[in-house]
Amino acid sequence: MRPGQKIEMHPTEQMPLVGILGAGQLGRMLALAGYPLGLRFRFFDPAPDAPAGQLAEHFVADYTDEDALRRFAQGVDVFTYEFENVPVEAVRFLSRFAPVYPPPAALEAAQDRLSEKTLFRHLGIPTPPFAPVDTREQLDDAVRAIGLPAVLKTRRFGYDGKGQRVLRTTNDVESAWQALGGVPLILEGFIPFEREVSVLAVRSRTGETAFYPLVENHHRDGILRLSLAPAQSSIFSHQSSISNLHSLACDYASRLVAALDYVGVLAIEFFVQEGRLLANEMAPRVHNSGHWTIEGAATSQFENHLRAVLGWPLGATAMRGLAAMLNLIGALPDAQAVLALPGAHLHLYGKAPRPGRKLGHITLQAEDRESLYNLLEQARPIADL
Amino acid sequence: MRPGQKIEMHPTEQMPLVGILGAGQLGRMLALAGYPLGLRFRFFDPAPDAPAGQLAEHFVADYTDEDALRRFAQGVDVFTYEFENVPVEAVRFLSRFAPVYPPPAALEAAQDRLSEKTLFRHLGIPTPPFAPVDTREQLDDAVRAIGLPAVLKTRRFGYDGKGQRVLRTTNDVESAWQALGGVPLILEGFIPFEREVSVLAVRSRTGETAFYPLVENHHRDGILRLSLAPAQSSIFSHQSSISNLHSLACDYASRLVAALDYVGVLAIEFFVQEGRLLANEMAPRVHNSGHWTIEGAATSQFENHLRAVLGWPLGATAMRGLAAMLNLIGALPDAQAVLALPGAHLHLYGKAPRPGRKLGHITLQAEDRESLYNLLEQARPIADL
Repeated sequence: MRPGQKIEMHPTEQMPLVGILGAGQLGRMLALAGYPLGLRFRFFDPAPDAPAGQLAEHFVADYTDEDALRRFAQGVDVFTYEFENVPVEAVRFLSRFAPVYPPPAALEAAQDRLSEKTLFRHLGIPTPPFAPVDTREQLDDAVRAIGLPAVLKTRRFGYDGKGQRVLRTTNDVESAWQALGGVPLILEGFIPFEREVSVLAVRSRTGETAFYPLVENHHRDGILRLSLAPAQSSIFSHQSSISNLHSLACDYASRLVAALDYVGVLAIEFFVQEGRLLANEMAPRVHNSGHWTIEGAATSQFENHLRAVLGWPLGATAMRGLAAMLNLIGALPDAQAVLALPGAHLHLYGKAPRPGRKLGHITLQAEDRESLYNLLEQARPIADL
Repeated sequence: MRPGQKIEMHPTEQMPLVGILGAGQLGRMLALAGYPLGLRFRFFDPAPDAPAGQLAEHFVADYTDEDALRRFAQGVDVFTYEFENVPVEAVRFLSRFAPVYPPPAALEAAQDRLSEKTLFRHLGIPTPPFAPVDTREQLDDAVRAIGLPAVLKTRRFGYDGKGQRVLRTTNDVESAWQALGGVPLILEGFIPFEREVSVLAVRSRTGETAFYPLVENHHRDGILRLSLAPAQSSIFSHQSSISNLHSLACDYASRLVAALDYVGVLAIEFFVQEGRLLANEMAPRVHNSGHWTIEGAATSQFENHLRAVLGWPLGATAMRGLAAMLNLIGALPDAQAVLALPGAHLHLYGKAPRPGRKLGHITLQAEDRESLYNLLEQARPIADL
């Protein structure tokens, strides 16, 4: 065999080939979790420099390119996606060749904030008040019905705080409309002094379901910066205990996975208000607030997502100690400073630095809260937090 | 960009490119540990179906092909190897292009059982009695000097019990000579009722050194089948405590890494005899008896090997609970049966089954010894042990 630049790919025919739409860091971490299980991976992503392309076969084409999707599909045993803005049409097209999980209906619901919140309401899952906004007149009506402050959001393609405007007074209404109007919008009640938590559910093709502990999330500029697992009761002003909130979150997640006949990891973000959980949004995929599970749980969200879509038994979701996850945004940290922290685990995604871009994360681990907080204080400046 | 079968490789120029000789399962696990650190990998291995080729660039050529080695070397920041029978000449050739760790001298010593044992003796590390055997006459002399039982071994290229014959009586001498004679040999005293333990040391380019807990190893047909971490004192007949043996092993390992100006993970296997450690062999690389560190230690041997060869700070080597590692030899297990065991972690290497071949391993984890042993009893039949 000729030596050279050629990269050899060695299909091991016994083991399933997983086709993944989107080759970002979530796809990369799925592959890193799945290789030890003997799985093979193939990615589809229009970005030639997508992070998962460094460690697996990567088809570079537009999601609307059916010819490329057809070639991508050859030999794939199961499809999944790591990005919820992948076109539903592409997902439905691929489902002709092999099963796609999570089910396309879940993807469709999650892509539209109005469908998503309507589904929550239909299942008895509380949400902030909301109303659809397609015209300037509807916006005025919605502001009257919901009151201010409120948040105007695009119904589709929003992420990391993009496509949102907070309306604090009636003076903000016109500028928000100017900024966002022209596409379908939704106005949502603004939750003051918000505390955000998230729960990850995972459901296998067999119906087996498991939940990770409730996680507390802190954002800056609309981007997740810090997750603490499990959520710390000290942050909650009300008397509600974390275990009550965890039970409530699992109940809501159970309703969603049952209603959607869901398969895979499902993330749900909630606002905490006076001991209640108000569902903000869901993501039909592995989720940034679950990255701590790589070291902090018996089985990572990535491995469990793969087990679920293959119909294999789920792994234990129990925590191993306490964990904090800090996102690395925009600039790479001093890798050696991270590695010198005992209990710190560095995860870089192989992405070029750019303002606001998620380049990696650090997971901190400790056996007790005081040690975790000490470690967190040391890690914050390194992660620019 | 054209869609298709082409695999895109995306050099992220900031991060180091690690060139690895050998693309077996050890190389594969090095890459899986190194991708989260943002590292890039390139492998060199004459076997086109080598396991690491599934997840990184793989140069397929003979180790003696200098032209291929030269191309392989382009842009590599540091070289390492995952296989101790790689020709020293190839390693020395590559050292013209970038540093090679562990140092070639360590590789050279480890490739020859006589050099290795002579080095141990020189450093005051006890070994079983040994004598070189190049002729039939020398074999008779060696048998007289060492006594029986004894083990006749090839000096080079032995692994997994290959190239060895046990001599129990003088009747075995001629047949062992017929089987192995013609290449340089060594006769070693046979350690009856042997207990084998191993220690992994890791030393960074900065000189920082760390040790993993002492591990107890069980073989069948010359192949490692089970490692328990940490070693369990119940298996030792003598009054020596595990912590004494651990200190002794670390002392011996320290002498070796200092003498060799070693960089990377070094594994040393010892026989335990009446509270003493007798060095059997060393491996200048990550080692099968350290696979439990992926889940069972704060930092895996694979990540620490990479940190060491890059001169980065080492990660903590402390255990996380107790661990057992079962090798999967010759046949693939029922993956779902493994995954259904709580606390079990499956690692498959992407290799086709073949008798005697290491295809994967299972790591079991528990918080106490009783739980670990219960889990081990469930896992043994699945791993055909």
